[in-house]
Amino acid sequence: GLGVGTGDIGVRLERRMLRGLFPAPSLFLHQIAKEVAKLLEMKAQLGGDEGKHKFVLKTPKGTRDYSPKQMAIRERVFNAIITCFKRHGAEVIDTPVFELKETLTGKYGEDSKLIYDLKDQGGELLSLRYDLTVPFARYLAMNKITNIKRYHIAKVYRRDNPAMTRGRYREFYQCDFDIAGQFDPMIPDAECLKIVHEILSDLQLGDFLIKVNDRRILDGMFAVCGVPDSKFRTICSSVDKLDKMPWEEVRSEMVGEKGLSPEAADHIGEYVQLHGGLDLIEQLLQDPKLSQNKLAKEGLGDMKLLFEYLTLFGITGKISFDLSLARGLDYYTGVIFEAVLLQPENDHVEEPVSVGSVAGGGRYDGLVGMFDPKGRKVPCVGVSIGIERIFSILEQRVEASEEKIRTTETQVLVASAQKKLLEERLKLISELWNAGIKAEVLYKKNPKLLNQLQYCEDTGIPLVAIVGEQELKDGVVKLRVVATREEVNVRRESLVEEIRMRTSRP
Amino acid sequence: GLGVGTGDIGVRLERRMLRGLFPAPSLFLHQIAKEVAKLLEMKAQLGGDEGKHKFVLKTPKGTRDYSPKQMAIRERVFNAIITCFKRHGAEVIDTPVFELKETLTGKYGEDSKLIYDLKDQGGELLSLRYDLTVPFARYLAMNKITNIKRYHIAKVYRRDNPAMTRGRYREFYQCDFDIAGQFDPMIPDAECLKIVHEILSDLQLGDFLIKVNDRRILDGMFAVCGVPDSKFRTICSSVDKLDKMPWEEVRSEMVGEKGLSPEAADHIGEYVQLHGGLDLIEQLLQDPKLSQNKLAKEGLGDMKLLFEYLTLFGITGKISFDLSLARGLDYYTGVIFEAVLLQPENDHVEEPVSVGSVAGGGRYDGLVGMFDPKGRKVPCVGVSIGIERIFSILEQRVEASEEKIRTTETQVLVASAQKKLLEERLKLISELWNAGIKAEVLYKKNPKLLNQLQYCEDTGIPLVAIVGEQELKDGVVKLRVVATREEVNVRRESLVEEIRMRTSRP
Repeated sequence: GLGVGTGDIGVRLERRMLRGLFPAPSLFLHQIAKEVAKLLEMKAQLGGDEGKHKFVLKTPKGTRDYSPKQMAIRERVFNAIITCFKRHGAEVIDTPVFELKETLTGKYGEDSKLIYDLKDQGGELLSLRYDLTVPFARYLAMNKITNIKRYHIAKVYRRDNPAMTRGRYREFYQCDFDIAGQFDPMIPDAECLKIVHEILSDLQLGDFLIKVNDRRILDGMFAVCGVPDSKFRTICSSVDKLDKMPWEEVRSEMVGEKGLSPEAADHIGEYVQLHGGLDLIEQLLQDPKLSQNKLAKEGLGDMKLLFEYLTLFGITGKISFDLSLARGLDYYTGVIFEAVLLQPENDHVEEPVSVGSVAGGGRYDGLVGMFDPKGRKVPCVGVSIGIERIFSILEQRVEASEEKIRTTETQVLVASAQKKLLEERLKLISELWNAGIKAEVLYKKNPKLLNQLQYCEDTGIPLVAIVGEQELKDGVVKLRVVATREEVNVRRESLVEEIRMRTSRP
Repeated sequence: GLGVGTGDIGVRLERRMLRGLFPAPSLFLHQIAKEVAKLLEMKAQLGGDEGKHKFVLKTPKGTRDYSPKQMAIRERVFNAIITCFKRHGAEVIDTPVFELKETLTGKYGEDSKLIYDLKDQGGELLSLRYDLTVPFARYLAMNKITNIKRYHIAKVYRRDNPAMTRGRYREFYQCDFDIAGQFDPMIPDAECLKIVHEILSDLQLGDFLIKVNDRRILDGMFAVCGVPDSKFRTICSSVDKLDKMPWEEVRSEMVGEKGLSPEAADHIGEYVQLHGGLDLIEQLLQDPKLSQNKLAKEGLGDMKLLFEYLTLFGITGKISFDLSLARGLDYYTGVIFEAVLLQPENDHVEEPVSVGSVAGGGRYDGLVGMFDPKGRKVPCVGVSIGIERIFSILEQRVEASEEKIRTTETQVLVASAQKKLLEERLKLISELWNAGIKAEVLYKKNPKLLNQLQYCEDTGIPLVAIVGEQELKDGVVKLRVVATREEVNVRRESLVEEIRMRTSRP
C-alpha cells in the first residue's frame, strides 16, 4: 500500500544515510546518546534560565487520585464484576505493570504510538502494559498453558488525549475475562456475551446494546467490495471510526487518505448500514456476493450458531449483529463485540453524561502463537469491561442522589465522658480489636463527649461504648445507639456479643 | 562534605562549558535530543548487524506473574491485612502508579538512584512510585487534608538488585496504613505497632520481634557522640546497615568512606548495642550525656509514653527498643520501627527460608509540608507491610504441606450423560447463573461423562447437575455429590435452593 510503502522508503533512505555517515554506528550512537542524556539531565537540573522553578502540585496528565468516597463506589463496581467472573468459574492471575518493550511490539497496529515506554536506565527496554490481553497471551505462551479461563483486573496505560469528564484517562482499569483453549465453536464466545449482559444488568446503568460482528465477515465484505488484501487492516480502522464520525467523513478518509476506489468505498457504505438479528444473518447468507466468499460464509455460519446460543441464554433482545462494528485492535480474528449504553439514566443529573462503549472484546486465535517459539496457536476469546466510564456514571448518580456513602466500617467508637480515662479507653479498645470488633478511639487524652459523638455522626459509626468512673466500678460499659440516642449499660464481658448483635446487618 | 563538594564543582564546571559552547542551549539540546532519539529508534529497529534478533519470552527482570494458585495465597494475605486495617477504622485511597518526577525528588536520600523514570515522550517527566508514603503526602497537600486515617495497597517500583528467592522484587506490593493529623503524642504511633502485632499474629508466620527507635534519639546520640550535624543523615544510613553487616564493617564505612572520627564511631558503637524495654529507656533518661541533649530527651520521653500505651495493648512482649534501628529513608522525624521474623516456621520445609523485615514504618511530620506551598505541616505516622516476603513464606509452606488450594469457587458443573444435549446444558446453566449460582459447563458439544466428572475432581467442584432425556421428561435434574458419588433427583424448580443448601459452607 501507498501509506506503508512511503514509510518504508523513508526508513530505508535514513538507514543508508546513517551507514554512509557513520561507519560504526552503534558505538557512535551510544556515545552521542550518553552525552545528550547528561546534557538533558543538566538542563532539567538548571530548570531553564528564569531562576527558581515552580513546583506544580498535581497528578500526571490524564491520571487521578481516588478519594475514600470514590473508592467506595469503585469497590461496589469491582464487586459486581468479580462476582460475575467467579460465577462463571474463572481463576484470577496477575502480571507485572510493565513488559519487555518487544512483547508489545507489533500487536496494536496504529495504536502502538500510544504506548508508554520506560526510560533506558541500563538493562532491559520496558513499556507499560497497554491492555491485559497481550500480557495474558505472553503468560500463556511462556507457561505453555493451552487451556484456562481467567480474569484479570488491573490498570493499563495509554498516552491518549484524555477526556476525563467523559471517563477517558491515561491510566485506567480494565476488567478482563478470557477463555483460552481449543473448544467447539461459539460456546465460549456466547458465554462472554452472557457475562457482559449480566454485568451491565447488575450495575443498573440503564438500557444498553451489545453490538456483534466478526472479523471474517468484515474481511469477506472488504474482499467482495474490491478492497485490496493489503488494505484490509487500515480500511478496518476507518470503519472502526463510524461510532464517532459520520459515514461521509469515513468515506473520504478511505478514498482520500487511504487510496481506496470510490466504488469500493460506496459498496462498503451499503453493507455497514446493516444491523439486525438472525434475520439479517440469514439474508447475508443468501447475499449473492458474500455467500461466495469463504471467510464471510464461515463467519456468518458461526454468527448464526452464536445467535442460537444467545437465544438459549435469553439475551438476544440486547444483541445487535452490526456490520459497522470493526474494533481498533489488530489481533482479533473472529467474533468481535462492543457494549454501549443507550440512554444514560440521568433523570436526576442536570448535565447529561456522554458515555461511549463500556465493554468490548472478541476472539484472537493468533496472538498466543505470536509468542510461541514454534508458533503453536491457542485459540482465545475474551471480554474487557471499561470500568472508568461506568464509574463516572455511578459517581455522578451518587452525587445527584445525595446518598450518604460510608467510607469506613467501624462498628463502635470507644469514648469517655470524663477526663483522665485515656488508659481505660485504650484498654477497652484493645479488647474489642482482639475480639475482631471494628473500633475507633479519638487520639486525644481528654476529648469532649460532644466531639466524640459528632465524630460518629460525621463518619456513620452506629455505636458508642462509653467508659466512666461509675461504669468501671460497676463492671459495665454504657452502649449508646447514635441514631436513636438510646443508652444501655452492658456488662463488660457481654460487650463484644452485644456489639456484634447490634451491627450484624452489614 | 567532600563527596558533595566535588560533585558540585563538577556540575558548575560543566554548566560553564555548556554556556560557553552553546549560546542558546535549550533549543540546541532539544534538536540533538530529537535527532538522537530518531537514530536510537532506528538502531533498535535494525536490531544490530547480527541478523535476526531473538525474542526472549520472559517478564522484566525482578518481576513475576502470579498464577491462580499464587493469587489464592495472595488474596488470603490481603484479606488478613485489609480486615485489620478496617478493624482500625481506616478509609482507603488510590493514587496513580506514576508521579511527576519532581514529586519524588529529594525524598529518598541515597535510595533515589533506584527510582524508575519513564521515557520523555513529550509532555511531563514521570517516575514510577517508589513507595506509597510520598504519594500519600502529595495527596494530602494537594487536597489540603489535615486529618485522615487511610490504607493503600498497591505496587511500588525499585530498580534494586532483586533477590527473588528471598522475596525481593523490583515490582512489589506495599500495604500501608497511615494516620495524619495533629493529635496527642504517641497514641496513633502505638496503634500502628498494635496493627503490626495483629497482622503478624493473624498470619501465623511464627515468632516475630518489632524493633522500635526514634530519629530524635538517634540524632541526639549522634550529637553527643561528636558527629557533625552535616553528617547525621549519612551516618544514620550506615547505622541502618547493621542488620546486614557486622559492626566492624559499618564502623570502617563511617570512618573510611564518611570521614567520621574513630572516637565518635566507637562511641556510637557502644550505644547501638543497646536494646531492651522500659528499663533501658529509664537508664538512658539517666545517661549523663544523652539526658543533656534536648532531642534525645524528647525522644526518650515519648518512647516511655509509647511503652506505656503498648503495655495497655498487652504487646510489649514482642517489642524491643533497639538503638541500632535507623531505617533508610530520609523523611522520618520521630518514632521508627521494623518487624522481623525470628525463626521462620520451616519444620516442613527442607531449605530454610531466609527472610528479613516484614513490616516497617515510623513518623514523618515534615513530608506533607515539603509539598505545601506555604510549608504547612501535617504530622503523620504510618506502617507498611511487606507482603512479598510474607507471601514467599506462605507459598513455600503450602508447597510443603501439599494442601490442595482451590482456585475457583464454582459450586456446580452442568453436565450430560448423553449426546446432543448441549442446548439443554446451556439452558440450565443460564438459569443457574441468573439465580446467582457459580456454575460451569464444558465447552464441547458432546463431552464424555467421565471427562466431566474428572474436571470436577481436578478443580474441586463439589456438585454435578446432570441432564438427560429421562430427567428432562420427568422435570428433574440429577444432582451428584462428587466426593461421595451420591446421586439424587431434584425437581428443576428446587435445584437452585438445593445447590445453595449443599454448598452453603464457603
